[in-house]
Amino acid sequence: MAAKAEAGLFDSIFLADQLALGDDIVSGPRTGLEPVTMLAALATGTKRIGLIATASTTYTEPFNLARQFASIDHISGGRVGWNIVTSWLATAAGNYGGDKPVSHADRYARGEEFMTVVKALWESWAEDAILDDRAAGVYARPGAIKRIDHQGDFYQVAGPLNVPRGPQGRPVLVQAGSSETGRDFAARHAEAIFTAQMEKATAQTFYKDLKARVTAAGRSVDQALILPGLSPLIAGTEAEAARLADELGTLTDPEVGRKRMSARFGGHDFSHLPLDKPLSVEDFPDPETIQAARSRTEVIVGLVRREKPTLRELLAMLAGARGHHVFAGTPEQVADLMVDWFEDGAADGFNIMPPILPSMLEIFTAEVVPILRARGLFRSEYEGETLRDHYGLNQP
Amino acid sequence: MAAKAEAGLFDSIFLADQLALGDDIVSGPRTGLEPVTMLAALATGTKRIGLIATASTTYTEPFNLARQFASIDHISGGRVGWNIVTSWLATAAGNYGGDKPVSHADRYARGEEFMTVVKALWESWAEDAILDDRAAGVYARPGAIKRIDHQGDFYQVAGPLNVPRGPQGRPVLVQAGSSETGRDFAARHAEAIFTAQMEKATAQTFYKDLKARVTAAGRSVDQALILPGLSPLIAGTEAEAARLADELGTLTDPEVGRKRMSARFGGHDFSHLPLDKPLSVEDFPDPETIQAARSRTEVIVGLVRREKPTLRELLAMLAGARGHHVFAGTPEQVADLMVDWFEDGAADGFNIMPPILPSMLEIFTAEVVPILRARGLFRSEYEGETLRDHYGLNQP
Repeated sequence: MAAKAEAGLFDSIFLADQLALGDDIVSGPRTGLEPVTMLAALATGTKRIGLIATASTTYTEPFNLARQFASIDHISGGRVGWNIVTSWLATAAGNYGGDKPVSHADRYARGEEFMTVVKALWESWAEDAILDDRAAGVYARPGAIKRIDHQGDFYQVAGPLNVPRGPQGRPVLVQAGSSETGRDFAARHAEAIFTAQMEKATAQTFYKDLKARVTAAGRSVDQALILPGLSPLIAGTEAEAARLADELGTLTDPEVGRKRMSARFGGHDFSHLPLDKPLSVEDFPDPETIQAARSRTEVIVGLVRREKPTLRELLAMLAGARGHHVFAGTPEQVADLMVDWFEDGAADGFNIMPPILPSMLEIFTAEVVPILRARGLFRSEYEGETLRDHYGLNQP
Repeated sequence: MAAKAEAGLFDSIFLADQLALGDDIVSGPRTGLEPVTMLAALATGTKRIGLIATASTTYTEPFNLARQFASIDHISGGRVGWNIVTSWLATAAGNYGGDKPVSHADRYARGEEFMTVVKALWESWAEDAILDDRAAGVYARPGAIKRIDHQGDFYQVAGPLNVPRGPQGRPVLVQAGSSETGRDFAARHAEAIFTAQMEKATAQTFYKDLKARVTAAGRSVDQALILPGLSPLIAGTEAEAARLADELGTLTDPEVGRKRMSARFGGHDFSHLPLDKPLSVEDFPDPETIQAARSRTEVIVGLVRREKPTLRELLAMLAGARGHHVFAGTPEQVADLMVDWFEDGAADGFNIMPPILPSMLEIFTAEVVPILRARGLFRSEYEGETLRDHYGLNQP
């Protein structure tokens, strides 16, 4: 799949993650290999495409994470990105010594200090640290590799990192938090921001808000790219696309979806709701009461408020793309939607989530990309070598 | 290098590790990429050779380690091995929140419980857990994936692992501890044992002792392979090999070696010792007083007792192979030494540490391997697919 995305000249691929097995493993292979090792393996199997993996600041030692990502940046020739997450699943906490998840505020306080540590580690080797003068027997310049001596509330890390500075200086930093705290975190640190937006209006509001926060944080808005998810179901005609969407909907199991939605809403019981009656906002707990991944629940409740779907319809919408924008149409319609969002201040680019793999990735590459290219909005070949090059990001 | 070792039909390659940068980085590139990510990358670049990496039980979460190694076992098609280490460097402790290293006893107590947790995680998916019945919408057999609910002194881990059981059931477990505690740990857990032995007599004593411990632990001796390190300097004639050894010796910097030896002996000051006077045992601290990697210091003191080298000579001997057996000779002499150790109860195989890479690896493969093969002691092609196959180890 990575090779297909590379053949299609995508900027990058992205691996999500979850630190515990879900109950729904009985119904489907909803688990993958561990993303960091997977990324290292894909670095050998690809040449130009960017490689982004999710890793948690909550249950990883900063020295280990900084070191593994620096290694992959070397292995891939400067193509690695890190999707920074804080872990909120209670089942994940159970795999790391906790009997309950870390609170939202604590997760972000720890995450903030984690960023200070890993950034310092990635900067602990000066750019010209390696001299490699073999005749003189000198490998590194004395003084060009420095301890970081971090002493904080959560972490004490001496450093320096024991891996030389990578080709990108540090991985491209990606983030997807959408709460108030999450947006401020993204504004301070993220160079690419993934976001789930089910419609253009909310995407525009999010875009404007986040760019304002980036400016307030003293950063340039073109160094924090906003990339909403988009799950395009593509067919030759609008009618055929609609038929395909219906067919996918009938393949979902509403009882599996009901359980997943319950987990998303902090264990709220949805078992009494009939499948085929229009939902109302009162059927859901107030998103304000949700400790974890609150913003995704706000997206869902917003959709219920606007569109009043039945539970069956809602679960079908959430089944594949899980709260991201789902769109069924012709290649022209998909391209039009992307251009519209891009030109109208809703997106700097997209995280394409093909609803069927690999076929919908192949169709997107073959049918949608040429339209975007004809409009001057998609490359004809890779121009740079690194993920920073592909995204137009500065070297730290 | 991995591809060259694979072309030479080696069982496996092995990546050592250290969780902190040494001061001697100024003198040479004594740091590599992070071994676990490196192994994942090598899994894509090779097809049959086993892949072993060092990872520490002291500064890693067991859930993260179990998951990453299970992933690489899948990525490599069953070729992964884990060299289990406990971390003793004070500088490593400083990178993980500690102001002093964990004591020897605590490291092993924690390591023992770590093994219980990761073995349980690797067994949390039954062999027939995946049904993948797409027509019925059933991926995993209900009840075939079980929580582990580990509650111990150091770790609380609920499980199950969120990666399916790997092709080898679990990674091949490798260990190199040589203290009393370390040997008992190896006897209980290790399927391959790396060891530094500078002469055949001590290797035989170690071999006999460890196999007895394996039997006492209720395991079969052929499931715990003893693999001493061997650093062979190979040339067409004995005189040429000796000349090469001298040349390598003159390329070492004794002042760098002096500092390294000081670090090895817990910071003991060797700065007053003249370079060219024969050493005596009194020049060294009692190995019994060394908290960390004590067995390697015993090897060095034993060598001083037997051979009374000058400091310059000792440092040259330790410079490349760091306490492992160094041998300079013709291909026939190297093969004879290996056969002698193998037949005389000193080794089940060897961890070959070529003193110059890649040239000495190429010469070993081209010149020594055919002699071993002619004596019926080396394969002509890979017969199995997994590292367990190559080593003749049972599937857990």
